[in-house]
Amino acid sequence: MNRELFKTAGSVTAFAPATVANVAVGFDILGFSVDGVGDEVTVSVLETPGKVEVIEISGVVTDLPKQSSKNTAAVALHAMIDDLGLPHGFSIRIKKGIAMGSGMGGSAASAVGAVVAAGALLTRLDPPFRRKPLLEAKLLEYALQGEKAASGAIHGDNVGPCLKGGLTLILPSMAMVSIPTPRDVFALLVHPDLEIETRQARGILKKEVPLSQWVEQSSWLGGFLAGCFKSDLELIRASMKDVVIEPQRAQLIPGFSELKAEALKLGALGFSISGSGPSVFAWVPGKELAENISRRLIEIFRRRNISAHAWVTPLSSPGARVRSES
Amino acid sequence: MNRELFKTAGSVTAFAPATVANVAVGFDILGFSVDGVGDEVTVSVLETPGKVEVIEISGVVTDLPKQSSKNTAAVALHAMIDDLGLPHGFSIRIKKGIAMGSGMGGSAASAVGAVVAAGALLTRLDPPFRRKPLLEAKLLEYALQGEKAASGAIHGDNVGPCLKGGLTLILPSMAMVSIPTPRDVFALLVHPDLEIETRQARGILKKEVPLSQWVEQSSWLGGFLAGCFKSDLELIRASMKDVVIEPQRAQLIPGFSELKAEALKLGALGFSISGSGPSVFAWVPGKELAENISRRLIEIFRRRNISAHAWVTPLSSPGARVRSES
Repeated sequence: MNRELFKTAGSVTAFAPATVANVAVGFDILGFSVDGVGDEVTVSVLETPGKVEVIEISGVVTDLPKQSSKNTAAVALHAMIDDLGLPHGFSIRIKKGIAMGSGMGGSAASAVGAVVAAGALLTRLDPPFRRKPLLEAKLLEYALQGEKAASGAIHGDNVGPCLKGGLTLILPSMAMVSIPTPRDVFALLVHPDLEIETRQARGILKKEVPLSQWVEQSSWLGGFLAGCFKSDLELIRASMKDVVIEPQRAQLIPGFSELKAEALKLGALGFSISGSGPSVFAWVPGKELAENISRRLIEIFRRRNISAHAWVTPLSSPGARVRSES
Repeated sequence: MNRELFKTAGSVTAFAPATVANVAVGFDILGFSVDGVGDEVTVSVLETPGKVEVIEISGVVTDLPKQSSKNTAAVALHAMIDDLGLPHGFSIRIKKGIAMGSGMGGSAASAVGAVVAAGALLTRLDPPFRRKPLLEAKLLEYALQGEKAASGAIHGDNVGPCLKGGLTLILPSMAMVSIPTPRDVFALLVHPDLEIETRQARGILKKEVPLSQWVEQSSWLGGFLAGCFKSDLELIRASMKDVVIEPQRAQLIPGFSELKAEALKLGALGFSISGSGPSVFAWVPGKELAENISRRLIEIFRRRNISAHAWVTPLSSPGARVRSES
């Protein structure tokens, strides 16, 4: 085997967007991508078979584990190597745009960025190492392994929309179903400078849901999905509610009820916790209104001496993609 | 007030179809109408203010309560009289096509048939008693009062689709949302000659749903609704599952697991309990296949010495409507 061939492969950089999981109505099964903020992952071939090395972590987080058994990007590429029986390894450089413990799908983004970059890289290798583009389902499978390393369980509601873009429903089989979203509705994501560990946010949840609450939440989910398919903003507004998880987690976010009341008063269709928090999100009709609301929310955090960042993006934004090759 | 005017009003007969509630994925929030079987309700004006009299019950059930506080049709018309302040009463004749305790929405059908017939009758009265056609939301409100008299609680998943037709999602506000259904998929409804009381079927349910089961069932609901909107039969097939209620109620239906296995083996997209049972239903691609499956299911019941009837209808069937006026 002529290992010199790897030297010509260069590197591929992929961008993987932040994602809002749960989306009020779909705990653990629904998420959407938020363009404009995300992780950039650059992957090169390593000659050593089976070796995955994280050589650099930069950006808003630098203290992530580089150890390949704990880093989500590295675990994802190990899964790819094992599944495909690749005769080489990978090196990874990660530029984090997503803060740790922000509820914005940071660990999913690093894993997805890595598999998208590595998948593209494989198509550029010289024969006999060259590969056809990998199926989306395969990329998902590898990225989920990475996500599992971070959160301790397999949940597709960040990885799915990060890979596929837009609003994505995840079935237990991990099949991804794209849900259309109404035009001219914008997503607003606000990240207060606090950290909540997913494991902790999961730990406080009751292990059971009362039957009546389950029925109510199911109807909100149904109404929300129907509203998305029908592009019926008033149906979305009526349905975008979380009566199960949000009441249990709101206490983790200072000022949550004030933030929510303000967003809804100003015209947001819905407002809730992004993933396990502390970031919060809203769906808002119109970009200008979304920007106004985001300013108000940042102000509310500031009054509590918490600095915050906000992003406003169209709802239908693309998933992870190759940004550059060299 | 010239009460002679009521004499010329004659009577109006409405047909209200059977309905399948729950539809596997949507306990208490989803139902669809099954044309070809239902109740016929004939309503005339009674001169006595506020009086509602059930003067005849015929058809497959004759031992229903005629007492107007217990009869769903009468309670519904009392609600109409009270809300509109009508200066007269109604007499009701009911021809039941839906067996009691069959899980086919019989009490809802009588209530809906009554309000649809009475609503039409009001438009035929001479001035000053004549009324404009009532809003669907008003008819729903009155019919729900009737349903409440029968089941002890307000659930819209029979009344909603019975009134509106087709597959209907009910929000907690009792707003009805029509869900499109794929063409060429047929509903198959099999009624074994057994009786299950709704209250009993409700009584055996656990009061809590485990968190993981809730998440799984939410994704089936989401997948099912997305499959309906996308007309994606394979997505419907993958998602038409009930992991919460069906396992608790299947024991009430002799041979349930054999019936289900047979229906799915023969090609049904999904199979579950209709409402609180003992009727069962399936969604089947193609009329011929639906008829084949229905014969097999009837046979399975017969081998257990249970006689059964089956109906096969297109999924998108109309709701209650006026059948004749005289």
